[in-house]
Amino acid sequence: MDIQTYMHGVGRQARAASRVIAQADTGTKNRALEVMADTLVRNAQTLIAANARDVSAARERGLDAAAVDRLTLTLKTVQSMADGLRQIAKLPDPIGEITGLKYRPSGIQVGQMRVPLGVVGIIYESRPNVTADAAGLCLKSGNAAILRGGSEAIHSNQAIAACVHEGLRAVGLPEAVVQVVETTDRSAVGELITMQDYVDVIVPRGGKSLIERLMRESRIPMIKHLDGVCHVYIDDRADYDKAIRIADNAKTQRLGTCNTMETLLVARGIAERILPPLATIYRDKGIELRGDEVARAVVPDMKAATEEDWYTEYLAAILAVRVVEGLDEAIAHITTYGSQHTDAIVTEDYTRARRFLREVDSSSVMVNASTRFADGYEYGLGAEIGISTDKLHARGPVGLEGLTSLKYVVLGDGQVRE
Amino acid sequence: MDIQTYMHGVGRQARAASRVIAQADTGTKNRALEVMADTLVRNAQTLIAANARDVSAARERGLDAAAVDRLTLTLKTVQSMADGLRQIAKLPDPIGEITGLKYRPSGIQVGQMRVPLGVVGIIYESRPNVTADAAGLCLKSGNAAILRGGSEAIHSNQAIAACVHEGLRAVGLPEAVVQVVETTDRSAVGELITMQDYVDVIVPRGGKSLIERLMRESRIPMIKHLDGVCHVYIDDRADYDKAIRIADNAKTQRLGTCNTMETLLVARGIAERILPPLATIYRDKGIELRGDEVARAVVPDMKAATEEDWYTEYLAAILAVRVVEGLDEAIAHITTYGSQHTDAIVTEDYTRARRFLREVDSSSVMVNASTRFADGYEYGLGAEIGISTDKLHARGPVGLEGLTSLKYVVLGDGQVRE
Repeated sequence: MDIQTYMHGVGRQARAASRVIAQADTGTKNRALEVMADTLVRNAQTLIAANARDVSAARERGLDAAAVDRLTLTLKTVQSMADGLRQIAKLPDPIGEITGLKYRPSGIQVGQMRVPLGVVGIIYESRPNVTADAAGLCLKSGNAAILRGGSEAIHSNQAIAACVHEGLRAVGLPEAVVQVVETTDRSAVGELITMQDYVDVIVPRGGKSLIERLMRESRIPMIKHLDGVCHVYIDDRADYDKAIRIADNAKTQRLGTCNTMETLLVARGIAERILPPLATIYRDKGIELRGDEVARAVVPDMKAATEEDWYTEYLAAILAVRVVEGLDEAIAHITTYGSQHTDAIVTEDYTRARRFLREVDSSSVMVNASTRFADGYEYGLGAEIGISTDKLHARGPVGLEGLTSLKYVVLGDGQVRE
Repeated sequence: MDIQTYMHGVGRQARAASRVIAQADTGTKNRALEVMADTLVRNAQTLIAANARDVSAARERGLDAAAVDRLTLTLKTVQSMADGLRQIAKLPDPIGEITGLKYRPSGIQVGQMRVPLGVVGIIYESRPNVTADAAGLCLKSGNAAILRGGSEAIHSNQAIAACVHEGLRAVGLPEAVVQVVETTDRSAVGELITMQDYVDVIVPRGGKSLIERLMRESRIPMIKHLDGVCHVYIDDRADYDKAIRIADNAKTQRLGTCNTMETLLVARGIAERILPPLATIYRDKGIELRGDEVARAVVPDMKAATEEDWYTEYLAAILAVRVVEGLDEAIAHITTYGSQHTDAIVTEDYTRARRFLREVDSSSVMVNASTRFADGYEYGLGAEIGISTDKLHARGPVGLEGLTSLKYVVLGDGQVRE
């Protein structure tokens, strides 16, 4: 069977399954999630054995240590996949909720009902835990899922899929509610992102080059995440301790996450007071600083930042530092160089805080908090399918609601339009 | 100047203007709308004279009477454009509203703020009133607009744009908040729908062939409307009078609108009682009926419907009629042949009504009401930029909110992530 025929078969089955899962009641979906979790834990050794095949193949192919680490399943990661599914079972069911049902002058009552999107295609790279997470989120939000993981994780993903299917079968749902693409042929992705009749939305999870390729080729709407060039601006009316704590945490708590600060902006009025102690903290934690001229006049052992630095998402132990005149220049910098992901101001000034919240056009804007909080769990979404840097449909961390839509419901008593 | 250079200039100006209008306060936006309305009325004769040039050119080119009618401006249509802008001024400002601000266990407070999308590109055909409507909706929702009307309306649209610009100038907003593309060169559309850096969303308003072309070529998300194959299903537990009234109104109140019923589904148990009187009503109003075999057994002078009829949006005095066993077959028919626009059930049965609302996957689902109600004004949105048959971002009638998005706001007291 050629790839196109195979993928269209997957698509057709997903579309049919989406009609079933869209109508599944809350209890059924939750029981499926619980059985999936139990099955994962019970089959932990089988999963780890399947994963071992992927890991040794990856080592043979010379994958770097970080990539092998992301690929590897342990008893702990299996347990945390199961916990994730149980958490999703505990979240309120978004589907079918009716809001805003109001009478109109014509006598009809109009509201909106939350409904699934239909079929969600998820394209991801090495982490096999995404298979369980994405399956759980799609199921709970009433969607069918087509999961296309990295070829390096194919055995792990299929072993996880077997547990997911056991959960579906146990409650009488069709296995096609969650399908893991069984070929490692790269052209499967090309098919997936152009099957408009079968797939309603694509959620790509992976590096920038994957996303950019999909953006060029996809004919299906995407919920996607591009860059995370996040800023913290320390205003001259900042509380000194808060500023130190936030600037430290936003950069150093984790280096490789999209909500990690990449550029620190400091108001000129506080630069001489706050940059030297911050530079000491960063130096002690092995962070390389790249500053503009004014910053380097204050902290002479900084490297010089180039224009390119302001645009860069390092995801590494590097921080760009710029001294700005004040709020206007900070906002202008963020507007020019930022990626509209997450930006924070540290200030005690009411009007400046309010202006920053309104004027910075990013998916998360913060006052006196670390950019690291931009996360579905921290925001209370319960789970996260990804973070969107798009403007349409969903912005910022995307939970169950991001996999749903609203349709209008109209209740009448025989009304007609005059 | 070539078209690409021209359009990129328009895009750059729109992007810059979008930053200004996004921050404009409610009073300023409302005053601009009021001045635009006053200016339109004061310049009615100028508008009608500019329009006369378009109309006579259209007549010379042999445009049909309906198209010339859509193109023509009268004192009444100018007045109604002005009224539309004044209505938009009276709507609540969606921008900046913060909802759901809740404390999280970490101590941060997380909510969402409604924000503009940025730059909206609107592509439309002959009706010049769209120029004023779209300008008003984009302005109120804090977006910059690039309007690309039909070449046959170019003089009318520019005359309307002059009034819009007078309103912007009067309150100190940049004219580039609303730009009307000044060339009739068709390649301008091709540029508009591929300028990802300058345009955040495209709203196409026009026939299916325009939309299909844009779907193929656009690199920018669209809020679009494709087909309106709307159904009314008369259940065998329908109230007779309501069924007659709704089936009549849904088809005959206006023939050419997207929310007009195109296929009538009748439960077998009520077909013999309700089809003959309905056939008489339709016959008296000049509606041609095309039925399946069972329907034709009840009303013999119906034409025979072909498979193609069930898929067709007639927008004309034709109605397809099918007799179904009951609710399951009605839903199956709508799922197979419908366009997920607007579908209604007429029934007094509680459980069937509830099932229809949940199981029919259309942007509007109705019980005991005419499909003709699927409309932004009827739903209380105050105004409408279009009706979306998409699932992402906005479904059904799209008002001011459809031109906005939500960003997260986080308020803290120095919290950092553990």
